[in-house]
Amino acid sequence: MRYTRVSVSGRAVWGRVGEEDVELLSESPLDDPRRRPHGEGGPTVIGTVPRAEAVWLPVVVPPVFYAVGMNYPRHIAHCGAEVPVRPEVGYRANNALTGHGSPIVKPAEVTGRFEAEPELVAVIGRTLRHATYEEARTAVFGWTIGNDVSARAWQHQDRTFWRSKNSDTFKPMGPWIETDVDALAQTTTLRVNGEVRAAFPTGDMVFDPFDHIVEITRHITMRPGDVLWMGAEATCRIEPGDTVDIEISGIGVLSNPVHPEGKPA
Amino acid sequence: MRYTRVSVSGRAVWGRVGEEDVELLSESPLDDPRRRPHGEGGPTVIGTVPRAEAVWLPVVVPPVFYAVGMNYPRHIAHCGAEVPVRPEVGYRANNALTGHGSPIVKPAEVTGRFEAEPELVAVIGRTLRHATYEEARTAVFGWTIGNDVSARAWQHQDRTFWRSKNSDTFKPMGPWIETDVDALAQTTTLRVNGEVRAAFPTGDMVFDPFDHIVEITRHITMRPGDVLWMGAEATCRIEPGDTVDIEISGIGVLSNPVHPEGKPA
Repeated sequence: MRYTRVSVSGRAVWGRVGEEDVELLSESPLDDPRRRPHGEGGPTVIGTVPRAEAVWLPVVVPPVFYAVGMNYPRHIAHCGAEVPVRPEVGYRANNALTGHGSPIVKPAEVTGRFEAEPELVAVIGRTLRHATYEEARTAVFGWTIGNDVSARAWQHQDRTFWRSKNSDTFKPMGPWIETDVDALAQTTTLRVNGEVRAAFPTGDMVFDPFDHIVEITRHITMRPGDVLWMGAEATCRIEPGDTVDIEISGIGVLSNPVHPEGKPA
Repeated sequence: MRYTRVSVSGRAVWGRVGEEDVELLSESPLDDPRRRPHGEGGPTVIGTVPRAEAVWLPVVVPPVFYAVGMNYPRHIAHCGAEVPVRPEVGYRANNALTGHGSPIVKPAEVTGRFEAEPELVAVIGRTLRHATYEEARTAVFGWTIGNDVSARAWQHQDRTFWRSKNSDTFKPMGPWIETDVDALAQTTTLRVNGEVRAAFPTGDMVFDPFDHIVEITRHITMRPGDVLWMGAEATCRIEPGDTVDIEISGIGVLSNPVHPEGKPA
């Protein structure tokens, strides 16, 4: 199944994505584990919109937005960082989220490298604490795609990632949550204006999503809708006028144009 | 006015705090700027609970949880850090929030210094971007108190603050939002088991809350309910069995017992 959120008359509505249409749902499929896609009850269909006309929103507004930094061996080597000895996470901020098809806005003040980072995202479907690896596996509701857009000069010059990674529109997430995929057996492909800039095995991680969930929940309660961005193996420059596509096989394509600041969306 | 959230039959309800009672409100006072406390319309009273029986929740679940690190001159000197040349922020995570009166749980695995950090908190009441200093002033709905509980060994050993500052219960916030106070002209007092451990002028900051809002909104849209924790001038050790009180004159007292992990709340 593919779930997402779309904008209908300015209101955020959950949807189930088919080949031609998006079926609008009465409620979130995430709120109650008894209402999981294959369980009893759950959301009912309250309308449809043609898929070609859908206005895609970030697939969820997470209670907590987790992001793994150093997790792919080649990226760690490229950054000259040390290979982590146990899973660690940071945070991103919800203001930065934007949907599939919406512009990434490059701030006028940004100089230097402005880059896309293609990431697999786990969406949590259950409340969990002190999870085992198996519990972590069953707690993932589904998988989506994130672009961890980064302004490198700010990233290196600031004490935190606040504006380098969390300025408005810097976190496209979508196009939908795929519930039926072996997410770690896929390929992540990064394209700019249709040209492949990077491709890597999605699952080539130091610690996988379930390792991270086990570690996080030793001290922290994770909840339905929390997202865990899994880091990138490769990055590439993007500039206003470009269109950046991130494809993860078995999930879909997250596509966003890049606009200069000041251009009307 | 003093606004908060309380638990009523397991449900979070907004309240207005009086001398004897908490008046339960039909909706959040934060959602619409036309519904500010002194405006027309707004929440209506749907019940009351005696203040002595109130179960206090974190005063708001913020869309984005901002926290300033280095902002008080003596704390910066104590840490051997450089005085910031412009406002900067980091993030904390909503899972860690807990209410006035609820326990701070010290994880069994924590060794070394386990500390309280008393902080002034600004609660945002309007959507704003590219704010002027004056717009920032009018965008603050009110003020509350935060305790930025920190496990120092984890803080120094980890790449991020994920578990050192964001483990469950590490972010008490309350007891209420005070809308009528000159928050920068107050005194912050930290007490453990009734004994004063630190006291400092609340407003003795390198950059004030409005400076931070101006800087943040150059790149980021702030929204009603966002919180901005302003950092601490002094900290002190806490241990299971202690009760830690943070008083900010003109606002109130945030009080929490410290429990060992495993003790029933």
